Amino acid sequence: MAEEIRIALDAMGGDNAPGEIVNGAVNAVMHNQGMRIILVGKQDDVSKAFEDAKKTAAAGSGKSKDPSVKVFGDWEERISIRNASEVIGTAEHPVEAIMHKRDSSMVTALTMVKKGEADAMVSAGNSGALMVGGQGIVGRIRGVQRPPFGTLIPTKRGALLLVDSGANVDARPQFLAQWAKMGSIYVENALGIRKPKVGILNVGAEEEKGNQLVKDTFPLLKKMNEDGEINFVGSTEAREVPEGTVDVLVCDGFAGNVLLKMYEGTAKVLLSVVKEGIYSSTRSKIGGLLIKPALKKTLKKFDSSQYGGAPILGLSGLVVKMHGSARAKEAERAMQQCVEFYNLKIADRINEYAQAEKKKQDAERAAAKAAKSAEGE
Amino acid sequence: MAEEIRIALDAMGGDNAPGEIVNGAVNAVMHNQGMRIILVGKQDDVSKAFEDAKKTAAAGSGKSKDPSVKVFGDWEERISIRNASEVIGTAEHPVEAIMHKRDSSMVTALTMVKKGEADAMVSAGNSGALMVGGQGIVGRIRGVQRPPFGTLIPTKRGALLLVDSGANVDARPQFLAQWAKMGSIYVENALGIRKPKVGILNVGAEEEKGNQLVKDTFPLLKKMNEDGEINFVGSTEAREVPEGTVDVLVCDGFAGNVLLKMYEGTAKVLLSVVKEGIYSSTRSKIGGLLIKPALKKTLKKFDSSQYGGAPILGLSGLVVKMHGSARAKEAERAMQQCVEFYNLKIADRINEYAQAEKKKQDAERAAAKAAKSAEGE
Repeated sequence: MAEEIRIALDAMGGDNAPGEIVNGAVNAVMHNQGMRIILVGKQDDVSKAFEDAKKTAAAGSGKSKDPSVKVFGDWEERISIRNASEVIGTAEHPVEAIMHKRDSSMVTALTMVKKGEADAMVSAGNSGALMVGGQGIVGRIRGVQRPPFGTLIPTKRGALLLVDSGANVDARPQFLAQWAKMGSIYVENALGIRKPKVGILNVGAEEEKGNQLVKDTFPLLKKMNEDGEINFVGSTEAREVPEGTVDVLVCDGFAGNVLLKMYEGTAKVLLSVVKEGIYSSTRSKIGGLLIKPALKKTLKKFDSSQYGGAPILGLSGLVVKMHGSARAKEAERAMQQCVEFYNLKIADRINEYAQAEKKKQDAERAAAKAAKSAEGE
Repeated sequence: MAEEIRIALDAMGGDNAPGEIVNGAVNAVMHNQGMRIILVGKQDDVSKAFEDAKKTAAAGSGKSKDPSVKVFGDWEERISIRNASEVIGTAEHPVEAIMHKRDSSMVTALTMVKKGEADAMVSAGNSGALMVGGQGIVGRIRGVQRPPFGTLIPTKRGALLLVDSGANVDARPQFLAQWAKMGSIYVENALGIRKPKVGILNVGAEEEKGNQLVKDTFPLLKKMNEDGEINFVGSTEAREVPEGTVDVLVCDGFAGNVLLKMYEGTAKVLLSVVKEGIYSSTRSKIGGLLIKPALKKTLKKFDSSQYGGAPILGLSGLVVKMHGSARAKEAERAMQQCVEFYNLKIADRINEYAQAEKKKQDAERAAAKAAKSAEGE
C-alpha cells in the first residue's frame, strides 16, 4: 500500500468555509484510504462544522446514493483539528496578510508543509496570499523562475491544463517556457497523456500574430520542441479551448484568468438562459422534464469541480488552490488530487526538471562571467 | 429624409465571400432606404454572386417570411459593382498585403472612402490588414493615438461594447483611456444609453489587482470620471461580462480578443453539447421538440450577428470589420449599422473629442518644450 499522505486543509478559506470545506474533507477520508486530513482554523468554528459534517455523514453515508461507493470505517481517526486564530479575507492585500496574520489558517497550514508536519496543503482562500505564502513560506524549487497556477478545465475531449491561470499577471517568455514543461509533466503523469500537446494562447493561428510576449516566447517553445522536451503545436485561439484541441495551454496569468473566468461566466449565464427558456411555457416545461436526465449526463463532463483544485507548480511542497466558491465536492476532489499528485511522484519529476534548469542557468551565468573577465583582460 | 449613405463593401473578404456577403448586401438595400452599396471585388465572381442573390431574393423576397418587412422597389438601382482584381487572404501579412495588393477589394474599398467616393466601407477580410489599411489609407483622426475595434457583444441585459477587441495587442494606459471615452460616445449614441458604465477588464474586483497596464490605466480612468468625462465603475472580471454589468469594457486587444473568442467558443460548444444530450434518447428527443420554440426565443438575444460588425473607432472615415465567418444576416446588419453610425453623427462626436485631445497634447508638448528651453537658459 502507498504511504499515508497528510493534508493540511485551510478550513477557513473561501466563500463556503468552514461548512462545505469540512464536509468535503469528511467525504474525502470516508471514501479514500491513504490520507489523513488536518482541519486548520478557528477551533470553535471548525469543531462545529466537523460535528455537523459527521451528522450529515451519519445520515447519508457521505451523501452518496451509489452502493458501490465504499466507506472506510477508520475515517474518523484520520481527521483532526489544528487551531489557528486568524483568517485571511479575500480582499486583503496578499503580502501584508501573509506577513501580519501569522496565526491565520492559511499561514499555519503552509508552515505545516514547510516543517514537514504535512505533505500538502489545500485552500480556497485569497489566491494572491496563497501564491505569496507558497513562495515565501513553503519555498520555490531552485531553478523555477515563477511558480504558476495550473488549472484543469473541462473541454469536449477531456481536461486541458491552463497554466498560468492567474498567479503571474505580468510574465516573461522564460516563465512561459518553464510552465510549458512543468505543465507537460503534470498532464503526462496526472492524466496519463503521453507527449501532451502544448499550445500557446494567441489571437490568431499564424506565427507572426500575437503580442510581444507571445512573439518572444514562440522561438523558445519551438526550440524545446526540437529538443524533444515538449510537444509544441503552436498558437491556440481561445475559441478552440472548449473544443480541447490541446492538452496544455500556456499564457500569462492575466490572459489565463480572463479565459478561465469567461469560461465559467459564459457557461453559467447560457445554462441559466436555457433554463429560463424551458420554464417560459407549459409545453416547454414538459419538454424540460423529458430532456433533464440526458442533459444532466452530457453536461456532467463540463463540471469543473470534478478536477479538484489548481496546484501551484514548482514549489518545494504541494500547495493546491481551490475556487473561492468551492463546495464539498470540489474540496473532496482536491484531497484525492493531493494523494494522486503525491503517489505519481509529480513533484519529483518537476524537481528533476528544475535541477536541470538550475544547472543550465548556472552554466549560462558562469559563461557570461567568463566572457566578461576575458573581455577585461 | 436623411441623406443617402454610400457603402463600399469588400465582397471578397471572409470565409463565406462572395456569396453570403453579397446576399447580405441585397437584403440590406431591399429592406432599407437611405443606402447605396458598391460591391467591390472580382467582376466575374461578384456578378455571379449578385445574379444568384437576385434569384434568391426574387424567390423569397429577401428570405423574410414576415409580411411586415417592407421591400423597397428601387433596391436594384441602389446596388452596383466595382471591379478589383486582387484578394487579400486571411493568413497574409497585414502590412505587406496592404502595400502590395493595391488592386485588392479591401484596398480599393478603403481608397473609395479616402477619396470621398464612399461614406463607409465594410469587410469580413483579414483584420490586421484592415487595421493597417484603415490607418494608412483612410487615416487616423489627429489626437487619437491608436484606433481600436469596438465590438458589441450580447449579454443577459443587452449589448456591451468591448474595446479593444483585437487591434492593439500591446497597449498603453493612454490608449485605454481614449478607448473608454470613444467607447462611451459610441454606446451613448448608437444604443441610446445615457452615461454608459465603463469598466476595465481585470482579474479581481479590488483596485490593487491587475497587471501593470491595468494598474497604470486605473488612475487615468478615475481622473476622467472625476472630470465627468466618463462614468467609470472600476474593475470588471471576465465572469461578469455575460451578465452585462457594464456598457463599455476597456482592455488591451490581446485580452479583448481572448475574451471575445472564448465567449463565442464556449457558447458554440455548450449549445452543441446541449443538443447532443437532447438527441441521446427518444424520450429526450421528444422533450427537445417541445422546448425548441421557447429556447430559440430566449437564445436569440445571444446571437451576436444581430449587432453587425465592429467599427474601427477614431478613423477619419467609417470602416467596419465583420467576423471572418460572417453570413448574410451579419452583413445586412453591418450595412444598417453604417447608416445609423452616419445619421447619429457618431464620427462627428468622436471628432470633437479628438480635437480636444489634440489641443491637450499640443499644450503638453508646448509646456514640455518651454520647460526644456527654460532649463537651457
